Amino acid sequence: MAQKPSIPKGTRDFSPSEVNKRNYIFDVVKKHFQTYGFQPIETPSFENSETLMGKYGDEGDRLIFKILNSGDFLNKVNDDLYATKDSSAITSRISEKALRYDLTVPFARYVVMHQNEIDFPFKRYQIQPVWRADRPQKGRFREFFQCDADVVGSDSLLQEVELVQLYDAVFTDLKLEGVTVKLNNRKILAGIAEVIGERDKLIDFTVALDKLDKIGIDGVSKEMREKGISDTAIEKAAPLFALSGSNLEQLSVLSDLLKDSEEGSKGVGELRFIIATIEELGLQSANLKIDVTLARGLNYYTGAIFEVAAPEGVSMGSIGGGGRYDDLTGIFGLKDVSGVGISFGLDRIYLVLEELGLFPETIDQSLQVLCVNFGEKEALTSLKLVNRLRKAGVKCDLYPSSAKMQKQMKFANNRNVPYVVLIGEQELDSNSFVVKDMVKGGQQTYSLDAPELFYKGL
Amino acid sequence: MAQKPSIPKGTRDFSPSEVNKRNYIFDVVKKHFQTYGFQPIETPSFENSETLMGKYGDEGDRLIFKILNSGDFLNKVNDDLYATKDSSAITSRISEKALRYDLTVPFARYVVMHQNEIDFPFKRYQIQPVWRADRPQKGRFREFFQCDADVVGSDSLLQEVELVQLYDAVFTDLKLEGVTVKLNNRKILAGIAEVIGERDKLIDFTVALDKLDKIGIDGVSKEMREKGISDTAIEKAAPLFALSGSNLEQLSVLSDLLKDSEEGSKGVGELRFIIATIEELGLQSANLKIDVTLARGLNYYTGAIFEVAAPEGVSMGSIGGGGRYDDLTGIFGLKDVSGVGISFGLDRIYLVLEELGLFPETIDQSLQVLCVNFGEKEALTSLKLVNRLRKAGVKCDLYPSSAKMQKQMKFANNRNVPYVVLIGEQELDSNSFVVKDMVKGGQQTYSLDAPELFYKGL
Repeated sequence: MAQKPSIPKGTRDFSPSEVNKRNYIFDVVKKHFQTYGFQPIETPSFENSETLMGKYGDEGDRLIFKILNSGDFLNKVNDDLYATKDSSAITSRISEKALRYDLTVPFARYVVMHQNEIDFPFKRYQIQPVWRADRPQKGRFREFFQCDADVVGSDSLLQEVELVQLYDAVFTDLKLEGVTVKLNNRKILAGIAEVIGERDKLIDFTVALDKLDKIGIDGVSKEMREKGISDTAIEKAAPLFALSGSNLEQLSVLSDLLKDSEEGSKGVGELRFIIATIEELGLQSANLKIDVTLARGLNYYTGAIFEVAAPEGVSMGSIGGGGRYDDLTGIFGLKDVSGVGISFGLDRIYLVLEELGLFPETIDQSLQVLCVNFGEKEALTSLKLVNRLRKAGVKCDLYPSSAKMQKQMKFANNRNVPYVVLIGEQELDSNSFVVKDMVKGGQQTYSLDAPELFYKGL
Repeated sequence: MAQKPSIPKGTRDFSPSEVNKRNYIFDVVKKHFQTYGFQPIETPSFENSETLMGKYGDEGDRLIFKILNSGDFLNKVNDDLYATKDSSAITSRISEKALRYDLTVPFARYVVMHQNEIDFPFKRYQIQPVWRADRPQKGRFREFFQCDADVVGSDSLLQEVELVQLYDAVFTDLKLEGVTVKLNNRKILAGIAEVIGERDKLIDFTVALDKLDKIGIDGVSKEMREKGISDTAIEKAAPLFALSGSNLEQLSVLSDLLKDSEEGSKGVGELRFIIATIEELGLQSANLKIDVTLARGLNYYTGAIFEVAAPEGVSMGSIGGGGRYDDLTGIFGLKDVSGVGISFGLDRIYLVLEELGLFPETIDQSLQVLCVNFGEKEALTSLKLVNRLRKAGVKCDLYPSSAKMQKQMKFANNRNVPYVVLIGEQELDSNSFVVKDMVKGGQQTYSLDAPELFYKGL
């Protein structure tokens, strides 16, 4: 009996319309990556397990898909270990490869392995799928694309400036105007924790501060107290809770608050430079806003932190993010290589463009012209026309059999074909073809000797 | 201690130059897939194991990469089975997913699962990686891309005609002129085996015939005899060994040889139609040639068989192939859906284009303009210019720090940058910028008020 087919949970088939829409986003992103001087690299889908394991914390290790060794893999497990039936201990003996979990660790591995071929600073982009054995839920998949641009080998703040401009360029081009690029700096968060005397409670402090929007000043204070942050510290941090106004006004409050912290002041200086330079250069449609509650994997970043929010009125988590990490490649033995990068959240951007109706109308016109098939002789003449149209780059097809007219027209409708070409007996006799305009209605006759009069306009 | 990074054998990192070259091929192929009315789909990297296992023979099953279940996977193995320590028996208990082995079985699964959304005939293309746990060797990888176009739901021979034309269009566009599309038909091979009275030795017969080029008539006869094919049969097949001349001449010999086999005669008729139609339509640069030794996974195909050979003088196996299979989706419960498809061998096409120097010269010019960085003030003015260039679509960058001129120029050289822009103190004063032509030599000065005089020409 034939099996009823299914696909693994958390994975997806993409239909032609979905692929076209995804490619539309990828193509816009890629175009701007390239004009900004980023170069593409690709890395294997699976890495040696040791490259990935231990890089994402215990939870990450659990979420990495492991690939079973080939052949008699149990042969490598000695009897004592086998007797334990301990899945976790046995894993490393029967699996040596794993699917990549993100694009950052493979990139770091790439830079170290290819350091002698690379001209630093190296700006690379990488658009490939990653896999996580996470519990699937709405909007969270086990296979999804990441879309990253990073620069390594330069600690110039001009990179941060460029990355904000890159976000602006991409989202403007996608017609998604009014996104907000939120900006923070890891040094500012560390500085705050330092000046309020709670350096070791940085994470608790930030997690609470992050909820300011939702639970208000009182809620944040309460949570901080519960986490053991002193009243004196909370009082000292109070100006943060009321942080508002323009970027310049916020910088001024921060600068004052952090004047006694070297690290914090450095962070304020970095923010100030990035914001001033971007104001001088101008943005097309994005807003740039300091958000001192922004944390994004605090342990990872060392400088600037970015996050992009969809335009107001669209309820969607961040559609992009990134930051600077001062030691990307150290884990693989290449020290002191500073990196800074951003990523685009493809799946969320897709949903936002869909919700706002921002995909180009023509995206589902995968076929511009369909020739109706009236029989063998007519089909041959039609194919000659189709041939010419295709050579001119027109997406074009001949219905493959002389099915009923109704069936062929239904096919044209389902495929959203804007023009249907008819070459029947009468047209053969008069060496002509008829074009039906499926959008506006009406039809027009052209000579088969001058089909360009039709297709030049497409 | 930092680990020395490596990648799994049989996998590859792709550098920017390699990605650009690969994308060049993909883009050309995709363009023609689209003008021929094919639509893109994508399927998950891994499938449920039951979807893949048993579809590629025992050898195929062994070469499929299996993914280990998450969590305490050994928990699902009962003690009796566990005690056997039988890797092969235990595999299905600890692994439920596997990386796809090709794009055809996932496509069949897709068609069945989505049959109600699809308008047949369905022309789809799919360009995605596949994985095989094969022994890696020169030109054979464990991860590689397949690039397939198939039509399902039409048994019209016009599809075969179109697929030959598609090969011609793609290879002509890639400037790889003079490829030979070899054409055969499964029904002809079956017909031959029938008329020589060796129906059950079809495979042995074809495998021997396939070596005609290399071992000559005597060698082929000897091998056939060794496989138990009778002298009478070999004698009857003799005209095949001497098959030569034009397609029409070969058709005439075949037609005569197979006149008593219904299936064989049908195959000859199909070949004749395809060849006659293509002659009527014309090819741009490819040759079409009957090759009765062509087999390509004989058990799989039911009608036309295609294979593409590189131009004469290039020693390379086939760079593409395909054929018709009458029951693609039957294994998943959808009967009587005929399919026909072709694929492009990306890795081999890459090697051929490289060998013949056919990649566009500009492919490594990932950066068109580099601005030298002379310091903070100059950099800001340079960035404004860079901004305008990028908005005009020029691939452009500012060196991120005011490093020594020599270092910046070396970077420009290594990146193959054709134009270097200089904005130093003097240029700031005179509101101008200098463009050095790195290819032809020489330099020219432009006003910062009219940079388009420079970039419009790019």
